[in-house]
Order: sequence, then structure tokens, then C-alpha cells
Amino acid sequence: MDEHLIAPRLGRRGFLKRAGVVGATLPIASGLIVSACYNDPSGQKAKATAVPPAKPASTHGGGTAATSQAEDWQTIDADHKKGVEDFLKNQTTPITKGKGMQALTPRVENGVKIFDLTLDEVDWEVAPGQIEKARGYNGQVPGPTIRATEGDTVRINVKNNLTASSSVHWHGLYVPNNQDGVPYVTQDPIQPGKTFTYEFTLRNQGSHMYHSHHDSSDQVNRGLLGAFIVDPKDRSTYPRYDKEVILIMNDSLLGFTLNGKSFPATDAIAAKKGERLLVRWMNEGMMYHPMHLHGMTMEVFQRDGYPISPPYKCDTIDVPPGNRFDCIIECTEAGLWAFHCHVLSHAENKAGFFGLVTVLVVT
Amino acid sequence: MDEHLIAPRLGRRGFLKRAGVVGATLPIASGLIVSACYNDPSGQKAKATAVPPAKPASTHGGGTAATSQAEDWQTIDADHKKGVEDFLKNQTTPITKGKGMQALTPRVENGVKIFDLTLDEVDWEVAPGQIEKARGYNGQVPGPTIRATEGDTVRINVKNNLTASSSVHWHGLYVPNNQDGVPYVTQDPIQPGKTFTYEFTLRNQGSHMYHSHHDSSDQVNRGLLGAFIVDPKDRSTYPRYDKEVILIMNDSLLGFTLNGKSFPATDAIAAKKGERLLVRWMNEGMMYHPMHLHGMTMEVFQRDGYPISPPYKCDTIDVPPGNRFDCIIECTEAGLWAFHCHVLSHAENKAGFFGLVTVLVVT
Amino acid sequence: MDEHLIAPRLGRRGFLKRAGVVGATLPIASGLIVSACYNDPSGQKAKATAVPPAKPASTHGGGTAATSQAEDWQTIDADHKKGVEDFLKNQTTPITKGKGMQALTPRVENGVKIFDLTLDEVDWEVAPGQIEKARGYNGQVPGPTIRATEGDTVRINVKNNLTASSSVHWHGLYVPNNQDGVPYVTQDPIQPGKTFTYEFTLRNQGSHMYHSHHDSSDQVNRGLLGAFIVDPKDRSTYPRYDKEVILIMNDSLLGFTLNGKSFPATDAIAAKKGERLLVRWMNEGMMYHPMHLHGMTMEVFQRDGYPISPPYKCDTIDVPPGNRFDCIIECTEAGLWAFHCHVLSHAENKAGFFGLVTVLVVT
Repeated sequence: MDEHLIAPRLGRRGFLKRAGVVGATLPIASGLIVSACYNDPSGQKAKATAVPPAKPASTHGGGTAATSQAEDWQTIDADHKKGVEDFLKNQTTPITKGKGMQALTPRVENGVKIFDLTLDEVDWEVAPGQIEKARGYNGQVPGPTIRATEGDTVRINVKNNLTASSSVHWHGLYVPNNQDGVPYVTQDPIQPGKTFTYEFTLRNQGSHMYHSHHDSSDQVNRGLLGAFIVDPKDRSTYPRYDKEVILIMNDSLLGFTLNGKSFPATDAIAAKKGERLLVRWMNEGMMYHPMHLHGMTMEVFQRDGYPISPPYKCDTIDVPPGNRFDCIIECTEAGLWAFHCHVLSHAENKAGFFGLVTVLVVT
Repeated sequence: MDEHLIAPRLGRRGFLKRAGVVGATLPIASGLIVSACYNDPSGQKAKATAVPPAKPASTHGGGTAATSQAEDWQTIDADHKKGVEDFLKNQTTPITKGKGMQALTPRVENGVKIFDLTLDEVDWEVAPGQIEKARGYNGQVPGPTIRATEGDTVRINVKNNLTASSSVHWHGLYVPNNQDGVPYVTQDPIQPGKTFTYEFTLRNQGSHMYHSHHDSSDQVNRGLLGAFIVDPKDRSTYPRYDKEVILIMNDSLLGFTLNGKSFPATDAIAAKKGERLLVRWMNEGMMYHPMHLHGMTMEVFQRDGYPISPPYKCDTIDVPPGNRFDCIIECTEAGLWAFHCHVLSHAENKAGFFGLVTVLVVT
Repeated sequence: MDEHLIAPRLGRRGFLKRAGVVGATLPIASGLIVSACYNDPSGQKAKATAVPPAKPASTHGGGTAATSQAEDWQTIDADHKKGVEDFLKNQTTPITKGKGMQALTPRVENGVKIFDLTLDEVDWEVAPGQIEKARGYNGQVPGPTIRATEGDTVRINVKNNLTASSSVHWHGLYVPNNQDGVPYVTQDPIQPGKTFTYEFTLRNQGSHMYHSHHDSSDQVNRGLLGAFIVDPKDRSTYPRYDKEVILIMNDSLLGFTLNGKSFPATDAIAAKKGERLLVRWMNEGMMYHPMHLHGMTMEVFQRDGYPISPPYKCDTIDVPPGNRFDCIIECTEAGLWAFHCHVLSHAENKAGFFGLVTVLVVT
């Protein structure tokens, strides 16, 4: 009998049981409550197979290249399974400490939106047990998300608590030259213990970034980066969307990370069937990451805050380092859809998925 | 006297003689009979030069980086020459065993097109003498090409003869979630000795792919991949073309390969002057390969099965891993036109061309 | 007090003093005289800080990856500062020997534009003190810029003074097959001491290239490349621009270079406020270089000599190896704007900026 015909009989319960989440629902990162809708097509046969208990998958999230071919297939399978289970668990109970990209609320003085950033040395848990010597804004990797509207004047106070100098570049924003944040070209670096204040008016909408521009191969790769969203003043021509997510890729000193975490510690993305999901892609790494969405399509409509005319559709989007691409996903297909870098060595090894992997859950 | 003025005097015969194919015509991969039209511009002088006989070019196709600068130029030249000669020879008499991407004919039952795939361990000859421990569908690398039409329902029986579990992801296709082929997310892996059957209706036309989605850094890179072409139901808006070729790039465990082979074992591409050639590019590797066509232009009209509007022209096309780009080449220029990756270390070393190199022959 | 409020008080003089150029103006590469307009936001405080004198930054331009984290921040800062000072100095007094891409004036005989190229072994100073065993056309890296107009017939005499064979491929140009420059496919290689003459009529306008097509992983990476600009016969649809610059990237045997030099030996780009600057990007390397412009936007209108319709805007442009992209920068913002590869390891290490870095100076 064709195995896929068996699947609907076991259905969701069988999977959730093995995933250790029977009876639970999965509160997904965005706050939406979803339940896994995986149908296990070979569930009954799997029960009859002598799969050994998943051993501790010590390399999960470590980004280590594929190990010896000699590893037996049962171990490979069990490690893969445990990774997916951990990922599902992470959607209800975080499996790592620390959460980046928290919204940063400004205070307003005389019409100026004031944001406070600190630069901190931080122990950052990228994946369970993988704690790295990172540097973050406000203790977060990536730093808190700054958000304002075209035409706003913003002031950003930057306090340097590092043992190194730094500076902040507002990547993509039109700013006065002396606010551009390039040491010895537009300013002196901000020395340890010092504060520097940037102030400018937001002239161009879009998905932008901020990051260190000093010793940047080290500082950006260790976490000194964040999203800077400038909402358009006039939304009349902006695509309609129901919810949004920012996805920032990085790839060196902290390993392969999506929003500062490596699978299985990444957040799933949740949407209801029929919703239009806006994804803001940002590459702050040193490599190329063609991100592949299973089952659906991305319609790419903006690059670096400028329209792509006409928008183009694809299932694999490549965002070069320094670029930002905005796309809309029409969430027409229900299910758990893998969403990962198609440079496969950034996404999977013999211990299972790791790095630049998440799942789009459409319910 | 200018050397290029001498060339027409020697003409095609001189070249073919040195290539060891005088009197022969070259049946090119597509089945078209062509004859080489190279005019050797410095033929007469070459005869007077003490070029040593080509020594065995042991690194041909091996993908080894450039060796010592100390190697003498005559050896470099002779090795380069031998590589081109071997390539030309390969167009009449295959110089390696094994041919991937053979058309897979379905049987039809109750209106369903049924394809049978096996997963096999296979010794794959990438270049002469370079035999790799590969994995292939139906013993082929890349696997057989699956082809059907938008609206068709297909059933694919997958028998796993490997010593490892696997799964098949239908890359680019809209499928029900439980047919998507991601172990522990949408199904259990197909264990050694087991069979799994996928079934779905083809909803979106285009140049798509199928490949393993389990331990994929290993399995895809060792050959578990193939093309899945979905012809449009309505061809009224599809560009006109006279012939087509699929070009799949891969770049790691088997070396740099074009359709599973490394130069000089690659197939030439043949067209008649005036023909419109459709090229379907697919990158199943982990690197970027900006493929450069000499002498003519590619008009890129589709990405991942979606229209590029308007199409754009280029002579170097970059297809990120996971993407598929379709283009039309207007074959207006007669001759042998090199067609290769412009990351030069993927295409040439001191032993000559290797890897991602072929020739477009327009007669 | 906020440091950025202090900045205007010190102004330009403070910066120029520390940059060692007080009283001087900076003749920028294009011949335009500009003066640095940097406002040092933390100048006064910097005076009070015990910054040690800049030690010799021995790794400047060497492309070495980031060194030990243990290096103290004052040393890092001083090295960074010295790099920028050297770069500014380079705009008045070249800090390296040798200048590539000099215009090559043809002589005209019977309506044919004749260019003479020699292939030479050359010691090329990439950055101060970093002298590499290079190969250049007419002793230059990149070779001299060839320029003619659509419809022109050109003859190029190529004299090989190397200890290796070579050939010249006219990358992007429509040429007769026997002028295409691929050894053993369209011609024999040009042996040491020999001369070969190419002749063809320019059929397609655009930003094209010429480079070795023999042992090219070695020869192109060691400098045998140059720009070949074909001006359109009909300029009626060509974008208006006030000045232009060609930027050629390379990245292996000579390190990371922009027009043959590594920061701080790169040329700044100068424009007057309001000017439209045409940048012709060419990637002759083996890597991807997403070049990021601070403070302004690039409008990309041509790829490989073909129109991009409509042009797209971005602040980070990615030109794959072998491609050429042409863009217009509206120089609306005054100041010194960093312009660099956003693969940060191609642009900065603990010793400061190096490699693919320059500055756009708008006055």
C-alpha cells in the first residue's frame, strides 16, 4: 500500500506525540496560537522500526560541517528528529536565553523621538548550550528594532560600554555627513565609556539597518547590528499586508544566525491561511544566503527602500550582504513549510538542521 | 604578417587534424550533427613550435586549484590542448561512463502519470578516471528528468536502496504539505529498503527540481537531484524556441559539475545559426556560478517559473543556489563559443579547463 | 553635553590638522580640486585622550583577516586613523607606484583604430610596500582602458613579453569566432615572444572588458585585464551624466583591489554637488562584492551593455564576476561618503580599512 495513503489516519496526534507536545498548542513567535498540522505519512511503520532514542545532538546549532560518512543512519535520523522536536518546543518554551530585536520605544521631546542605545559585551546563547562572546546593543543580538516614520526627527544616544571604540552607521538612511558614523572619515570613534549622540531627520522610508562601522569585521559579526524601519508617510502605494516579520541573516563569528539564533532556537513564523505576510530581509553577514520557501512564493517589491517595478516572484530569494529586500508571501497553503538557506551547508549537517532554518506555519 | 590573417588559410581542417577528428563529424549531445568550425589563426606557426606531446593531464577535471607557478609554459599549453581535444572527442565517443538526466517516461493509470524512482549508491565517473562515491536516482547523476504538463496529476514511487534514509522535496512545486518531503516536519524519512509514494497535481508550470531533503548537504551534493519540468498548459504567452537544454550546476562532493560531468566530459550544446535556444539553468550547488556565454547574449525571461517582466539581456548569468532561470539565446553567430563559469577557479587551472565549462556550437 | 553638538565648533580645520593636510586642498583622482568637508564631532575630547602615536600599520592593505582580539583598542584606533590619513595623502601625493587604466590612444589607419598592447611581467605595488609579482598589459594593472565607438573597426596588436603563453578574450563584445581569444577552441595561444593581432568591428555598445583567456585563474587574477568601453553611436536614449568613473574589482592573487589598488592606495571619487556621476562597475575577480555607497543612491540602468528596464535604485550593488553594471549617482549630498564592499572582511580588519574601499567626495 502506498505509504502516503496511510498518513491521514495517524494525522496530527501521532506527530505531536513523538514531538512531545501532545495536548499542547504552539504559541508561535508572533504571539499567534497555532497548532502543528503535520500529517505523518509513515507513522505506523515508523513505530515498527527500531529507531534508537535520540542521543544528545551535541553539534546542533554549532554550524560544524558534515562529519564522517561512517555515522549510522539511525543516529542521523534520530538527531534530525530531535532537532525538529527542539524547534517545536522552542515555540512554546524558549530553549535559549536572550531575545534580540525587541521593539525600542522612544520618548518624545520637542517633537524629537529619542532612542537610547548602549553597546555591551554580552554572552549570547545562539543555540542551546552554544554561548558566544558577543557584542550587542542594549544587550541584544541583533539590537533592538528602531522604528519611526518618514519625516520624523530622531535622536539616538549611544553609550559605549565596550572595551573597544565603536561608531554607528545608519545603513541606507540619508543623513548629514557628520552623522554617518565612519571613524576618521566623518567622526572620531566613540571610545570606551563615552557617549555620542546622533540626530537627523528621516528622509527615506524603507527597511534599513544600523550597525557598527568600526573594526566592523569583528563588531558587526559579533552582533552590533539592528533593524531601522522607516515607515512611509504616505502608505497609499504601499502593498497591503496583514502582518510582518524582519529576518536578519548573519554568518561568521556567532555562526549562521537568523535574528541572532541558530536552528533549533529560531522562531517559527506564523500566519493564518489567506493572510499576506510582509518579510523584510536583511543580510548583515559576509556570505550569500539564497533563502528558499517551500510550498509558496515570495513577491519581491522593494530593494533598499526603493520600489522594484514590477515586483518579481520567486521561491528562493538572494539578499547580498548590505542589501534589504521586502517581499509579500500570500499564505494560501496550510501546513508547516520549511524556510531555509539553500546553501545547504548553512542549513543542515549530519546532526540535522541548524543555522539558517525556520518554518512558516500556515493554519 | 598579422597572425590572424593566416588563419583562414589553414581553416577547419588544421584544427580538426590536431584534435584528432579529421574526417569525422561531431554528433553533439542533442543529437544534431555538427562539424567544428574553428579557424586556427596561428596554425602554421604552431607547427614550427616545439610543443611537447601532451602528457597525461592527471588533474583534469579534478578541480584542484592552480599548482606551482614553476610549471613550464609548454606543459601548460599541451595540457590545455589535450583538454579541448578530449572534449571534442567526447562529443562523438563518450570519454566517461554514465549519463544523467535521461528522460523518464511515465506510465498512465486512470489519468495519473506514474514515475518510478530508485535511490542508489553509484560509482559515478565525473571526468575520465575520476570516479566518485555518488548517490543517484535510477543510477543517474543528476537523476532522470521528470516532465509533465500543468494540470497533470503525477504519482512518484520512491524506492530507497541506500544505506541511509532519505526523502524527496519537489523544489518549486505547489504541493500538499504532506507531500513536501521534509523529514520530521512533513513526513518521516524513507528508511533504507522502504518505498514511499508521492502524489500531487501540478499547479505551477516552470523549470523546477527534485532532490533529497534529508542529510542534504551530503545527499544533494553527492547526486540526489534532478530536473522537474512542468510545461505550461497554455503556451500562448511562452517565448518561441527551437530547442532546449537543461544545465544543472553542482560544486562540492563530486567537484564542479555541469549535468553531472566535469569538462572535458561535459556535453557541448549545438544549434543551427538562427535558432532560438532555450536554456533552463538550475543551481543545486552551494556556490555562485556566474555563467558567461561568449559571442552572444542570453535573454532571461523566467525565474523559478515566474515571468521576469520585461526580460533582461546579459552575457553572464548568475543563478543562486536553489533558483532556476530560463533564458533564450538567439544563435546568430557561427562558431565554437566557450560557455563557462566566470569564477575562473571553477573553470580553469594550470592543467586546462575543467569543471563548469562547455561550448555552444553554432553551425 | 552631546558630543555631536561640539563638532561644528571644531569643524574642518581640526580634522585636516590631524589628517596632516591643514592648509592643503585635495586634488582628487579625477583632477577636480576639492577640500575635505569632514566635521569632527568629538574633536575636543579626542585631544584630551591619550591616543598613542600611530604605529606602523604593517598589515594595511595586506588583506589579512582580523587578528587577535587581545589587541588593545588604542592601537586599533590609531591604525584605523593612520589608514584614513594615508588615503587622504594619496589623493595629493600617490603613496604607491604605478597607475593602471590609463587611456590608450589609438592611431588611425584607413579608418581602423589601432591599439598596441604588450603583456608584461611587472612588480605591482598594490598598497604601500605590498609589491606583488603581477602581469599587466602595457605594464599596468588593470591594463590601459580601450575606448571606441559603436561601428568603429579596431585592430589590437598584442605582443607577449611573458614567460607564458596567453590570449585575449574581448569579454562582452560581439566578434567573429576566430577573434574570440580562447586557446585551442578559437585560436592557438600566443606564445612567449610572439605577436597576435585581433581585428573586428564594434557591434554592441556598453561597458565591456578584455582579459587573458589562458591559464586564466592565474593570469586574470595577476592583472591581465582591462576595461573596453564602447560608446553608443546614438546617445539620444543614454542617461545624462556629468562625469564618469570605472571601478574594476579583483580579489585573489593581488589581494582585494579596486582598479588595481588596495585602500589606502585607492583613488577617491570626486563630484560637485548636483552632478550626475556615471559609475561603470566591472568584476574581474572570483568573489562577490556588494558595494555599498553611504549617504546616496545608485540608479542601475545597464547590465553587460543592455538596458535594465526600468532602472532600479539601491544603495548596495552586487556585480557578479564577469558582469558589468552601469549606474548613475545623483550627488545631492555634500561630504565624504564611504564606498566599500559590504562583505566586511574585504574592507576592514583590526588594522583599519583595506581592500575594496574608497570615498565619494561631494563638494
